[in-house]
Amino acid sequence: MSVTIVGTVAFDSIKTPYGIKEKILGGAATFAGTAASIYSPTNLISVVGQDFPQAYLNFFKERKINIEGIKIAEGKTFHWSGYYEKEMNQAHTIQTDLNVLLGFDPQVPEKFKGGEFVYLGNIDPILQRKVCQQFKKPKLVVLDTMNYWIRETYKELLETLKLIDVLIINDQELRMLTGIDNIIEAMPKAVALGPKTLIIKKGEHGAIMYHNGSYSIFPAYPLARLVDPTGAGDSFAGAFIGYMAKQKEISLENFQKAIIAGTIISSFTVQGFSLDILKTIDQNKIQERFSEIKQFSTLPETI
Amino acid sequence: MSVTIVGTVAFDSIKTPYGIKEKILGGAATFAGTAASIYSPTNLISVVGQDFPQAYLNFFKERKINIEGIKIAEGKTFHWSGYYEKEMNQAHTIQTDLNVLLGFDPQVPEKFKGGEFVYLGNIDPILQRKVCQQFKKPKLVVLDTMNYWIRETYKELLETLKLIDVLIINDQELRMLTGIDNIIEAMPKAVALGPKTLIIKKGEHGAIMYHNGSYSIFPAYPLARLVDPTGAGDSFAGAFIGYMAKQKEISLENFQKAIIAGTIISSFTVQGFSLDILKTIDQNKIQERFSEIKQFSTLPETI
Repeated sequence: MSVTIVGTVAFDSIKTPYGIKEKILGGAATFAGTAASIYSPTNLISVVGQDFPQAYLNFFKERKINIEGIKIAEGKTFHWSGYYEKEMNQAHTIQTDLNVLLGFDPQVPEKFKGGEFVYLGNIDPILQRKVCQQFKKPKLVVLDTMNYWIRETYKELLETLKLIDVLIINDQELRMLTGIDNIIEAMPKAVALGPKTLIIKKGEHGAIMYHNGSYSIFPAYPLARLVDPTGAGDSFAGAFIGYMAKQKEISLENFQKAIIAGTIISSFTVQGFSLDILKTIDQNKIQERFSEIKQFSTLPETI
Repeated sequence: MSVTIVGTVAFDSIKTPYGIKEKILGGAATFAGTAASIYSPTNLISVVGQDFPQAYLNFFKERKINIEGIKIAEGKTFHWSGYYEKEMNQAHTIQTDLNVLLGFDPQVPEKFKGGEFVYLGNIDPILQRKVCQQFKKPKLVVLDTMNYWIRETYKELLETLKLIDVLIINDQELRMLTGIDNIIEAMPKAVALGPKTLIIKKGEHGAIMYHNGSYSIFPAYPLARLVDPTGAGDSFAGAFIGYMAKQKEISLENFQKAIIAGTIISSFTVQGFSLDILKTIDQNKIQERFSEIKQFSTLPETI
């Protein structure tokens, strides 16, 4: 099945301990779409400005990513500038130029409305809801959000959460959303808000899922060097939904596999800037890291 | 085989979101010894004051913990006062009354000097070294330390690290010790300082071992409520060495099993104050949590 992804396609200007990059290709939909397309046909819904390079649009086309849902609007493309300090666990924003994003009113092209797998990237929860409601009978709707929306549009976000199946956020966002510090205690509370399944991204500490009243714990792929964490979360979520769209059924086991796919693919993303590494991934590389993860984290049969 | 543990036996006065306790039984050797004694005969080396209750000494005896190495000195028992805020991930010290610990010159009783399994709890690295050197032919020496010693007695600590086999510290301490933020990058650097094996405790995020050039990753037991984190690290290390002393050989697989034992036993410790829960653990309870951990964290065979 195909995946439809709504979110930003953007320019990023980024400084990390490993370099400074100006106006490189970024945005939630860019990372999620590139990751999803490893597994399934992918459609993007977004908006860019007239300054957006044709070469980038061609890149999507070459990956068989459908960009009919990317509107080219008058004005400039959304541009985020930020930096990471040496611990690399938090993005610091220098400047956010919303530009064409200000008037973004995402329309799902008619041909995508029958799509069953939908990823609502991190944008205004009102827009996420509007997009979601345009799908006729979605089978799996996955949503990402961030501290800004939790703080500023809490009620709207709660409305949107009622419509979705899987919420993927990080541990700090979970604490904000529920007001509870202990992740294990907080997870069922977040699920009570609507999503049937909750996946918490913990960066170097892996991920944890709460589904049908039970926890599943996942290690991170151990990386001695992160070049740029930008896009890690969207690569994770994109790979997750791309993987699920390829499966015959929605099940606990497939969710677990999809999370490992997300873990592995995001571990590649952060080893370079923009899509530098993400775009080079193939099945061999994924399976190699999966073998390593198995080796690192398989527990003994008895103690 | 038996385990010999050197460290503090103390009074703790503790405030957490779940209660306030005055002068309860605490100290690194207390937690480590109680945990180790689940698996192996255990000897303690420590010092207490004349105010130390006989009932507590009797508690150790009832657990078959040998206390011939606990000196009762003139003066008062070491007393730590502290609190935890709601995130529970850091102890804040209110007051440290070293008392009899000031003159602590740990002597290994003659009958323990042939011991093969030694845990050097968190005390001055000069004392740790002195204790270590009193053993004739130790097979496995495990050491814990803390930010204070890394900062204040760095050179002495480096000398002590050359004598040990396994270093067990937390991720912040690893960063301090190596000056490197990325844990995966830092672990081999710490091993280059002397210990053959390094185990990093990450609290709610589990643990990670570096041994023979390879990583092993372990989940935490998911707990929705921590009552008091005091003693978690020492319970972990005590269970680890107690478990190892019971095995026929020192091997990667046994290290992995011992870490899971430590994970489980420390998960009980933090569910109550002092030894309230730790002292009630039996094999059934351990195996029950082991089954749960397996269920939560067994990865699929393929993706």
